Amino acid sequence: MTVHISFSGDYSKLITPETTQKITTISEQMNARTSAGAEFLGWKNWPSEIDSELVARLQQTAEKIQKQADVLVVIGIGGSYLGAKAVLEALRQPFKTNEKVEIIFAGHLVSGAYLKNLMNYLDSKEVAVNVISKSGKTTEPAIAFRFLQDYMEKRYGAEAAERIYVTTDAEKGALLDVAKEKEYARFVVPDDIGGRYSVFTSVGLLPIAAAGYSIQNLLAGAKRAEEELAEVSLETNPAIQYAVIRNHLYASGYPVEISAIFEERLKFIQEWWKQLFGESEGKEGKGIFPASVVYSTDLHSLGQYVQDGKRMLFETFLKVASVEEDITMQLADNDSDELNYLAGKTLHEVNDAVQQATAEAHLSGGVPLVTLEIPDFSEDTLGYLLYFYMISCAYSAYLLEINPFDQPGVEEYKVNMFRLLNKPGF
Amino acid sequence: MTVHISFSGDYSKLITPETTQKITTISEQMNARTSAGAEFLGWKNWPSEIDSELVARLQQTAEKIQKQADVLVVIGIGGSYLGAKAVLEALRQPFKTNEKVEIIFAGHLVSGAYLKNLMNYLDSKEVAVNVISKSGKTTEPAIAFRFLQDYMEKRYGAEAAERIYVTTDAEKGALLDVAKEKEYARFVVPDDIGGRYSVFTSVGLLPIAAAGYSIQNLLAGAKRAEEELAEVSLETNPAIQYAVIRNHLYASGYPVEISAIFEERLKFIQEWWKQLFGESEGKEGKGIFPASVVYSTDLHSLGQYVQDGKRMLFETFLKVASVEEDITMQLADNDSDELNYLAGKTLHEVNDAVQQATAEAHLSGGVPLVTLEIPDFSEDTLGYLLYFYMISCAYSAYLLEINPFDQPGVEEYKVNMFRLLNKPGF
Repeated sequence: MTVHISFSGDYSKLITPETTQKITTISEQMNARTSAGAEFLGWKNWPSEIDSELVARLQQTAEKIQKQADVLVVIGIGGSYLGAKAVLEALRQPFKTNEKVEIIFAGHLVSGAYLKNLMNYLDSKEVAVNVISKSGKTTEPAIAFRFLQDYMEKRYGAEAAERIYVTTDAEKGALLDVAKEKEYARFVVPDDIGGRYSVFTSVGLLPIAAAGYSIQNLLAGAKRAEEELAEVSLETNPAIQYAVIRNHLYASGYPVEISAIFEERLKFIQEWWKQLFGESEGKEGKGIFPASVVYSTDLHSLGQYVQDGKRMLFETFLKVASVEEDITMQLADNDSDELNYLAGKTLHEVNDAVQQATAEAHLSGGVPLVTLEIPDFSEDTLGYLLYFYMISCAYSAYLLEINPFDQPGVEEYKVNMFRLLNKPGF
Repeated sequence: MTVHISFSGDYSKLITPETTQKITTISEQMNARTSAGAEFLGWKNWPSEIDSELVARLQQTAEKIQKQADVLVVIGIGGSYLGAKAVLEALRQPFKTNEKVEIIFAGHLVSGAYLKNLMNYLDSKEVAVNVISKSGKTTEPAIAFRFLQDYMEKRYGAEAAERIYVTTDAEKGALLDVAKEKEYARFVVPDDIGGRYSVFTSVGLLPIAAAGYSIQNLLAGAKRAEEELAEVSLETNPAIQYAVIRNHLYASGYPVEISAIFEERLKFIQEWWKQLFGESEGKEGKGIFPASVVYSTDLHSLGQYVQDGKRMLFETFLKVASVEEDITMQLADNDSDELNYLAGKTLHEVNDAVQQATAEAHLSGGVPLVTLEIPDFSEDTLGYLLYFYMISCAYSAYLLEINPFDQPGVEEYKVNMFRLLNKPGF
């Protein structure tokens, strides 16, 4: 297993006949496509079933983008933004620009200054655009695409069509119509995969491939996860264990889960995780509220609250066993900073001590701890980890008797907004 | 008042004789320096009492740094990191590099890759260093300074002493000893101001001034806040109102406060706010847990949870009335994206509709709403806002009968860490 899980409580007590029965039923119903929201279970076997021709076409398109552009502007919001963003940030080493194309996101916010200054920035670069929207009508990305399509056409004329890539519905929608009319290259958002489960589709893969990372390895990791985590076992399947532990803690008076990382580059994995779990479970007045901290930075901030504040939190550490680059502490002639006792240790070893020290401190403060450990920052590992979270989230939401695949609450602000802006029909 | 507050509930009901008495007592005890932790109330009159010679010296030093360096590496963690970071990020316009010197933070995390790659990056730049630590022994910044001091001395020889600036205790400590020995320029971390309240001291001001922003205007805003928010009035003082509302909501079953912004550049104002309130109030099993979202990005993520999840959340919007730069929606010949109804509107106007729509939606979902509105992103406004938060936080913690100025829980992981790393004496 690429994800190792441990729990500060007595996990064996959670393996009850009742829970085993629940998990078995959930698994059977998911496989039979009879569970709630089952029409959106397309992500479940996607890594093993993805068309190799699609992967080859994504790779070819990525290479075309690398040749034609310095910058790829990726327009999307929610699941059309966070999957690629999370993987790209996790693969990026600090102060390095490994990417073959600079990836800049747009359409994930409403800001005139952002779009205006982005277009100024683009003036000195060669540019391509990947617009990602199932319907083409989501306000934030639609606004960004209206400006950027205009920018591309004014700048590149007819060649703009060679530089705009559309990821949208296969059959219908405003963006599909535009793509057909303008003859943009098209990729499909599958009907049976919701936004927050879409990172392994063209939605996530095209930006990741364009940056020069291996989508083959990402998918290989996801496929291994799909196979290994299909086993219906409370004893050995870490995805099921994570779901069972979370539900146990939620029922025991811990409605807030804090994801803690010790490597800053995992920050958007946390943001993606917050969408995945928050949007899947936060319904009907239920669900764990997902929050995040970056340690040791936040040990000097929210750490005080975690240690001593209101007891309603549990923590989930996401640890990385090894790092690609490191430095070693040296002896100093003058030990005025009193760090000579660290001489010979790498900073990763010091960081490990921070993790262990924090675990012990927060446990003694009454914060239950789940630890997820991955071996490294490779594409393969990240593919495994993201699939792990997705399958675990499905189990977790079903244990809570929530449909993991809808998001009824996201519509409410939209309807209000359309009315306030006098959109025809609202 | 530069900060306007509004509340979705009936605020007039919160003005009771009992609460008025409590607030009056807190104010009197703070002024008499008899409240809990009063030895750390130095920040309270700091904006009006700051020595103009200190401000002039900070400005001169900033100009020296601007002449000698392309990059200023600022080494600090917690309050020695978040204040300057928050102000710098809020003043930075997207895709623009307004700074006269690039500010890069270090020592806020333990990462060999970060330090190693940072030093590689610095090789092609002219460099100065500002190390900020009261004691000089906090592990994370001490490690970073050990590497960067060595880097500076190897690279610049004797001239390194002209490029290293130390902000530390006035009288004692490991860092002070080094600074004296090496004859580094020194600035003082006052004894009576804790890290999270230190943004208006040299701790925050030197990096902000070095970047080229007006610390005079920042302090002018803070001073106006100090004067206006000194009034002991539940009817007219927004800082007291924010404290009273928060405590009312906490006591009414809302232990999680979500700060929501609609401009991404305020993200580190949120991080600073999380430290300020989380570290001040999260003690003795009490306190509101501070979380944050960036809208509209997170309306397509945590928005679902906020709308429909477990009812324990209240939201505090931080709104900005006007923006420096904007663009206006145009009519398109082909209205396939159905956005022509927005033609003539600026994106800031659309963003305002998002805010109002979200407020209505979340209120109808059972999420109480506090709104704080500031006029713009100027230094003056930010100075006012940060002081507003500090004085409000003091009232809020005292209402909860918590000392706002200590952080006993931050020590626990440190003691464990020293033991695990075999530090002599642990």
